[in-house]
Amino acid sequence: MSAVTVDPMQSAPAPSQPPSIFPLDQWYVAALGWELKDKPVARTLLGHSVVLFRTADGQAAALEDRCCHRALPLSQGTLDAGGIRCGYHGLLFNSQGECIEIPGQAKIPSKARVQPFTVCERDQIVWIWFASAAGGAPTTEPPAYDVHSNGQYLFEGDVYHYDAPYQLIHDNLLDLSHLGYVHLQTIGGDAKTHMNAKMTVESEGDTVRVVRHMLDSIPPPTYVAAYPFTGRVDRWQEIEFHVNHLRIWTGALDAGSEPVDSQNRGGFHMRGFHGVTPETESSSHYFWTIATNPKSNAEAVKEKVVEQTRLTFDEDKVVIEAQYRNMCRFPNRGMVDIHVDVGANRARRIVDRLRHPAS
Amino acid sequence: MSAVTVDPMQSAPAPSQPPSIFPLDQWYVAALGWELKDKPVARTLLGHSVVLFRTADGQAAALEDRCCHRALPLSQGTLDAGGIRCGYHGLLFNSQGECIEIPGQAKIPSKARVQPFTVCERDQIVWIWFASAAGGAPTTEPPAYDVHSNGQYLFEGDVYHYDAPYQLIHDNLLDLSHLGYVHLQTIGGDAKTHMNAKMTVESEGDTVRVVRHMLDSIPPPTYVAAYPFTGRVDRWQEIEFHVNHLRIWTGALDAGSEPVDSQNRGGFHMRGFHGVTPETESSSHYFWTIATNPKSNAEAVKEKVVEQTRLTFDEDKVVIEAQYRNMCRFPNRGMVDIHVDVGANRARRIVDRLRHPAS
Amino acid sequence: MSAVTVDPMQSAPAPSQPPSIFPLDQWYVAALGWELKDKPVARTLLGHSVVLFRTADGQAAALEDRCCHRALPLSQGTLDAGGIRCGYHGLLFNSQGECIEIPGQAKIPSKARVQPFTVCERDQIVWIWFASAAGGAPTTEPPAYDVHSNGQYLFEGDVYHYDAPYQLIHDNLLDLSHLGYVHLQTIGGDAKTHMNAKMTVESEGDTVRVVRHMLDSIPPPTYVAAYPFTGRVDRWQEIEFHVNHLRIWTGALDAGSEPVDSQNRGGFHMRGFHGVTPETESSSHYFWTIATNPKSNAEAVKEKVVEQTRLTFDEDKVVIEAQYRNMCRFPNRGMVDIHVDVGANRARRIVDRLRHPAS
Repeated sequence: MSAVTVDPMQSAPAPSQPPSIFPLDQWYVAALGWELKDKPVARTLLGHSVVLFRTADGQAAALEDRCCHRALPLSQGTLDAGGIRCGYHGLLFNSQGECIEIPGQAKIPSKARVQPFTVCERDQIVWIWFASAAGGAPTTEPPAYDVHSNGQYLFEGDVYHYDAPYQLIHDNLLDLSHLGYVHLQTIGGDAKTHMNAKMTVESEGDTVRVVRHMLDSIPPPTYVAAYPFTGRVDRWQEIEFHVNHLRIWTGALDAGSEPVDSQNRGGFHMRGFHGVTPETESSSHYFWTIATNPKSNAEAVKEKVVEQTRLTFDEDKVVIEAQYRNMCRFPNRGMVDIHVDVGANRARRIVDRLRHPAS
Repeated sequence: MSAVTVDPMQSAPAPSQPPSIFPLDQWYVAALGWELKDKPVARTLLGHSVVLFRTADGQAAALEDRCCHRALPLSQGTLDAGGIRCGYHGLLFNSQGECIEIPGQAKIPSKARVQPFTVCERDQIVWIWFASAAGGAPTTEPPAYDVHSNGQYLFEGDVYHYDAPYQLIHDNLLDLSHLGYVHLQTIGGDAKTHMNAKMTVESEGDTVRVVRHMLDSIPPPTYVAAYPFTGRVDRWQEIEFHVNHLRIWTGALDAGSEPVDSQNRGGFHMRGFHGVTPETESSSHYFWTIATNPKSNAEAVKEKVVEQTRLTFDEDKVVIEAQYRNMCRFPNRGMVDIHVDVGANRARRIVDRLRHPAS
Repeated sequence: MSAVTVDPMQSAPAPSQPPSIFPLDQWYVAALGWELKDKPVARTLLGHSVVLFRTADGQAAALEDRCCHRALPLSQGTLDAGGIRCGYHGLLFNSQGECIEIPGQAKIPSKARVQPFTVCERDQIVWIWFASAAGGAPTTEPPAYDVHSNGQYLFEGDVYHYDAPYQLIHDNLLDLSHLGYVHLQTIGGDAKTHMNAKMTVESEGDTVRVVRHMLDSIPPPTYVAAYPFTGRVDRWQEIEFHVNHLRIWTGALDAGSEPVDSQNRGGFHMRGFHGVTPETESSSHYFWTIATNPKSNAEAVKEKVVEQTRLTFDEDKVVIEAQYRNMCRFPNRGMVDIHVDVGANRARRIVDRLRHPAS
């Protein structure tokens, strides 16, 4: 691909009505399932202040994070058998946002309610639906993610907060050529190897798939620490973009031992889930899990992989937040594309399209 | 009272001329007397940057906190026999704001002066007068507070800064039903007891009086620590609202031992002074003292009462600042009133009326 | 001089076209030479985000601090034989801002470049030229400063960041009468001595020269610590203002031992370089060095002088930043001039004139 100057913010066609800031009528990740324990969790999602909690019967629930009485965040309250209780005057709300108790007052006025949000927990991920029309119900199931459920992997994860818009995280994840410059100490390895990797980019509907193969290459430090490679490796990176999350399958085989794109290939595997949820126009939540299949010393190897992944994501956060601060410092500037940007640019076109209401 | 939806910010009648942001032609607390020692104190009061200090003859004084020469805050200077000396080039100002010395220069220009404010110290509280018309003189004495002077109580106090408008502090102090949810560990006690307390609300002129009795109730932790109660208690809370301060008399008797509203009742007493002074439209100073009448171990009990009060006010600050941040996050939303809001709503009507110039 | 009320911001004549915010077509200090080692330095200068670095052949270089690919600050990258390499995808730029390598891509598009700035290092000071017209070349050499090069002095220096506009630093340096109030513990000494010093102010072209003599005065603590004075001293302060830096020559002789304004006077000398470079309209960089000529224990005395100078500049920073915060708190207020302001006011007129394009 030859390089061209584009402004990614201006590549969408002129809309017939104003686009929404974020793609709507979509599921977004609201929490990792194990975050919801005995305390409410406050989180701003697509500009909405939300309190997330688990009811007494174990269901995930989400309400607007504002008591209808005197506006205290409900997230400063406590969980109760019936729902969530405000920490100021004790009003109790159920998971539908209805006030079901006002201490010291028999009659509960009909206006005493807060807005509920539709949530659904699947494979240990709590998804929340944001509709384009008020009260719009989900039109799909939230995505399945059976890596968390099929028992073949050990995994862990975390939530990172980014002072950067969500699409800069998409860009970063869709272009792993940065590994050689940003992640030298962990999963990176030789910069030239990454930049010269054979890359294919395919898109279909609202997904983009980027596959990169680095055959006969030197395994990076994390790989060597986690798996008994005998020497050079055939390495793969398979990235699948969806508007609300990415799946990144990476791994390596002893060089030449079997086809790198085989369905049932062996070797060392890392399977990453990357939920990217806008907090505001200029900040994001990044929910990640990393799963692996250690050959031996399973728990220790998994810990190692998680630790290295965490270091890697710390490095990404530094770069992406610095990038965004600099974009704010230099507004209205174009960008010069290079060969590695193909996947990220396709994803941006999908997001642009999904932000525009159907005509 | 039945619950109704009101926006407390919009309940005033349409004014014939714009209301002031704060009630004017009023005394406000500027400092606790013992704050003014050998150094000037900088404080923003009703939007005015003020330097407070004590002159060589012991009088409290207040000036605009800006040297007329090069604008350095006078509060960065030093106290001198004649007044306050700027820390940059040494200009000396007396308590009337007149420059009385320019080092190295014989003639003092008539423009070399800074604005003075009228202050008056009474019962160890330093009051400052803010007039609606430039230079308007006080039309009343500042309030007396003889709890600080009559020798019957031990007391201490402090100044808290709030990132919240002053009226949210009024609301909090006028509605002590929150004790059961916010102050469980200290002066709270059983939530239901508070919510079901017998409450009377009276108003007269510019004051509101809220009285709550909790008869035959379990004494809260602070009370038990401070006084030799034999079992259950008859407890009172008497709140008197004035636009510039509140007085909160609370206490308890052994249950049934004498009338809870008797003039000369015995038992355990806590007398609170609560000076609430706007700093800006969105921030406040909260000057408090707490006085008590220990039966024995006077100093130790007083220390305990002060410590517990401080913990209580720390808890209030967390709640009120969270409430205000959430009100900013959700602007233009109504609030649903409940039974406990009667006193606070009357106080808001008084403040609204005092903010409007007489027609 | 009699005192008059002036607003220093409004003393310029009405311009025929809008003035620039800062004087342009000038050299400004960008760095002290020894700051540019093996890592790039990020610095905002006159509103421009600049990355400064030293090339493999030792030349100082400056580029706009933004990679043309995805906007990461180049200052987060690394130095390389050919120039500076971006820390995200490895693009390499030479000191002229031309991209000379895109890893993994043969063709380099012509648009792949970043803006270079003209810099020139002289006497260990790195100067940068800001032109009024895009691409305007320097019309002068940067200032020489042979105190750094002639071998007669020991010196050290540092860079301070100021949350205050650059002209407040000019004011401070041109009026050393503040020493008696701000710097009592170091170079100050008796306040009255400073305020009553004999002062002459001369201006010529774009420079102002202020000379103050304090004859038969008590040497301040720093002087006594640094030099074997026998008793009282004849002390001088010679300040030379240029729009981009000030030179401040101070020192003292044993009182009456030789003329205080002699060309070859002996005694104790402190020679200060003060590069004042706007960062933004409301913040500044202050590059300083202090040089001295110890009689014995040269290194120890120099360390002492640097330490005392640093303490002095710390004190100035506190005062000037407090002054600026207060100016923002009280906008649109006049200032009352006093006798010490003559030099500073002349410098302000020069800056005003240089901010206006020639008609």
